[in-house]
Amino acid sequence: MSQIRHALDVKREDDFSHWYQEVISAADMAEESGVRGCMVIKPWGYGIWERIQRLMDDRIKAAGVQNCYFPIFIPLKNFEREAEHVEGFAKEMAVVTHHRLISDGKGRLIPDPEAKLEEPLVVRPTSETIIGDAMARWIQSWRDLPLLTNQWANVVRWEMRTRMFLRTSEFLWQEGHTAHENREQALEETHRALEMYRACAEEDMALPVIAGEKPENERFPGAVETWSIEAMMQDGKALQAGTSHFLGTNFAHAAGIKYQDREGREQFCHTTSWGMSTRMIGGVIMTHGDDDGLRVPPRIAPQQVVIIPMLRDKPEDADVLAYCEELHRQLAVQHSMDEPVRVLLDKKPGQAAAKRWGWVRKGAPVIIEVGPRDMAEGKVAMIRRDRLWNTETGKVAFQFMAREECVSGIDALLADIQKSLFEEAAARRDANITRGVTSLDEVAAFYDGSRKFPGWIEVQWSKPTGAVLEKVVETLKEHKLTIRNVPRDAAPADDKCIFTGEAAVERILIGRAY
Amino acid sequence: MSQIRHALDVKREDDFSHWYQEVISAADMAEESGVRGCMVIKPWGYGIWERIQRLMDDRIKAAGVQNCYFPIFIPLKNFEREAEHVEGFAKEMAVVTHHRLISDGKGRLIPDPEAKLEEPLVVRPTSETIIGDAMARWIQSWRDLPLLTNQWANVVRWEMRTRMFLRTSEFLWQEGHTAHENREQALEETHRALEMYRACAEEDMALPVIAGEKPENERFPGAVETWSIEAMMQDGKALQAGTSHFLGTNFAHAAGIKYQDREGREQFCHTTSWGMSTRMIGGVIMTHGDDDGLRVPPRIAPQQVVIIPMLRDKPEDADVLAYCEELHRQLAVQHSMDEPVRVLLDKKPGQAAAKRWGWVRKGAPVIIEVGPRDMAEGKVAMIRRDRLWNTETGKVAFQFMAREECVSGIDALLADIQKSLFEEAAARRDANITRGVTSLDEVAAFYDGSRKFPGWIEVQWSKPTGAVLEKVVETLKEHKLTIRNVPRDAAPADDKCIFTGEAAVERILIGRAY
Repeated sequence: MSQIRHALDVKREDDFSHWYQEVISAADMAEESGVRGCMVIKPWGYGIWERIQRLMDDRIKAAGVQNCYFPIFIPLKNFEREAEHVEGFAKEMAVVTHHRLISDGKGRLIPDPEAKLEEPLVVRPTSETIIGDAMARWIQSWRDLPLLTNQWANVVRWEMRTRMFLRTSEFLWQEGHTAHENREQALEETHRALEMYRACAEEDMALPVIAGEKPENERFPGAVETWSIEAMMQDGKALQAGTSHFLGTNFAHAAGIKYQDREGREQFCHTTSWGMSTRMIGGVIMTHGDDDGLRVPPRIAPQQVVIIPMLRDKPEDADVLAYCEELHRQLAVQHSMDEPVRVLLDKKPGQAAAKRWGWVRKGAPVIIEVGPRDMAEGKVAMIRRDRLWNTETGKVAFQFMAREECVSGIDALLADIQKSLFEEAAARRDANITRGVTSLDEVAAFYDGSRKFPGWIEVQWSKPTGAVLEKVVETLKEHKLTIRNVPRDAAPADDKCIFTGEAAVERILIGRAY
Repeated sequence: MSQIRHALDVKREDDFSHWYQEVISAADMAEESGVRGCMVIKPWGYGIWERIQRLMDDRIKAAGVQNCYFPIFIPLKNFEREAEHVEGFAKEMAVVTHHRLISDGKGRLIPDPEAKLEEPLVVRPTSETIIGDAMARWIQSWRDLPLLTNQWANVVRWEMRTRMFLRTSEFLWQEGHTAHENREQALEETHRALEMYRACAEEDMALPVIAGEKPENERFPGAVETWSIEAMMQDGKALQAGTSHFLGTNFAHAAGIKYQDREGREQFCHTTSWGMSTRMIGGVIMTHGDDDGLRVPPRIAPQQVVIIPMLRDKPEDADVLAYCEELHRQLAVQHSMDEPVRVLLDKKPGQAAAKRWGWVRKGAPVIIEVGPRDMAEGKVAMIRRDRLWNTETGKVAFQFMAREECVSGIDALLADIQKSLFEEAAARRDANITRGVTSLDEVAAFYDGSRKFPGWIEVQWSKPTGAVLEKVVETLKEHKLTIRNVPRDAAPADDKCIFTGEAAVERILIGRAY
């Protein structure tokens, strides 16, 4: 096995955190903006978000949920109301206090003291309360239910330590908010959204996830139940990748969301909310990235196939280009995974080899190079990004094939890459969930630093609440661990609780998390 | 001709402004949010925006422009820089000064004095300057050009008097920003964007527009040339419906956007910017709305066909519903204007007649009603929203036809509605542009109030600049008039300037405007 010279300067196993930043930079996905905690999402990163958005939006619409848009500013009184009935109220928010800038006479601009707002406004950290107000206006009778709304928007939460995609002061997300006649229907919607997130993660982003309920201490403030999907990153840490909340009538009471039922009685609605954000892109990077950069699953790749003509400033360049243009035309009318194939002919000035490595780092699923010899033979040289290297020779694993074969095989190829990326991640995830840990000492030993990327452990517990649960949370925290969720599809409990020694009632996943 | 009982309480000719608000409310498009100057865009209004967005985004991508996302917050220094080099700098903006809320101990929340930002941040009124900063970082050589970027985002401009869709403190838009090697290429892009807006307005929104250059006094601050498309509303006023700016090297100088040219010399880029916003929805309403509500052109209608089953809580309801579901299936696999037909089966509880009028007010292009008798005969009852009334009988102009005929004819029908709405608006626009006005007295007489909706006049001028132009602008302002633009496709000048008496060099459009 020859030595491979990877495209990145840093390897995952040497410094995962540094590697993560390096991928974002090498794949040209995003950069620091110079504005505190806010990033600029560049075309390749934003293109991935647009793909995630479109695929998820199709699922949202198919479920009968309607998109709306609510104001970016939220009055203080909405938070005062929330602060009253919610314990874990987060107060780090951007506050607008003035509506005009004036010159200070020394070349600087300052907020105009004459233009101070009577009531400061908050830049939305979530639209929960303002959508609650709208629901209270919109719902009169059971005929108005279910009310199924969603918003795609930017939100701001003032963060002290930020990390691109994973934690930024401004991020992009969708937030679904629904109101129902009763508990059963609201619970059904909570699970529909959870299942939608599972499908988006697994089928679109090729991220294997575990869907389950969050323990009491990890619930969204005010929620009766919080459910999540959890994905395992390559360093073994968990990324919470989408949450769905059953809110009971708590938020309906706070916002006055009432309806007249079929018998004419006034009732409070049962509501839900569910959200997923640009954080997912961080999950895609940490799941599919390798030591050569990003690998984008074909379904969310802005470009699935990139054709690079090998031009040498020679007369035959025109023929090579024409050959590539014909290939582009042929590929662009193919379909794969229910959509037209997204194919780019990269005609930008520059060396073909430099362009190849650029696309390798960006993680385009398929890269096709065409030089004069390929053209003469009616062939193409194809790189499958998920199998970049010939590990025997240490060289790039080009596949040479007839142009027709390349065209007719593209559908199956892209589908296979999508599947392979998922299977690779699922196998790694499964190999890194350790079962059969039956004591706290074993937990401590497992996470004592001897394992580089220890992954998660599945343990059984008695589902303690209140002070006992707080104790459990504290104990785990000493090892930087958290309970990820109670997997929906786990086997029943059959042992003792590792925390209390009582009979266990369910299994939970424990791990470190982003 | 019988008396028609229209669906709205107010008619266009009685109170256009009140009628406008009434349509928005009756079509359930948007509402006041309770947050100063910000609206809630409801599903039907937002669905229209989503359609406009998707069609325009396809055009943007087809032109090789790439979407990015830039921070919502902009540092003060960016505006200080702009304030220096730009005369008409607008200062009404939302200013963030604190990043935390705390309780005042009396049940209220206040900005935490400890969490005052060292440097206030502005909620973006446009991303011009921050994108300029990014361009300066991203561009090194001619190989990086052209740089073609676009952003879909919310922006905030503090407005004292607001009007839904037309002028709100927060609105949604896209802003394109491009950098080029030279003047010619930047001008070409300016015109490509202008032409794109013309096509979006005319082909997608069925809004006839006049594309042309803005006079000097109406230029975007700092621009060398500003081009616009102008649409005529039913009250004869103009709506500027999209602008495209050629910025020369002005913004490149301000932000330091430089590149090394093919000869290795450092040069400033020539840049452009172009934008279009949710304001367009106001234009759609004021162009296509009638005394029964909105009429949405099929290409931008969230639902193009709505099927209403006439249910009576009787046993045959199930059969009627099954018949409608089959019709829905058949229509949904049809294509019209290059897209699958968007068809909704309205199964919500409620009377069929009430639902019909709801969809009439929303302006769904085609409404189909099916009752037990229609079903028995294999027929449907169809309403074409753009020809709602039988003016002879004063009744709704139902067309009864076989179900198969309805299905096979839907493509042509939707295309015809799209075309008819455009032609109706174009004919009205053309009838309301008055030519041959040759003196200022005539202008004054034309707009003296004797005409209810006077429309625009086309006059010839000598294209004065500086103080002479200022005088012209002042004179027009006395009659609440502005110069809309210099139509790109107008006939050459052949007369004297109505302002200066000198030989005219071009024709301009004058009118009142939103």
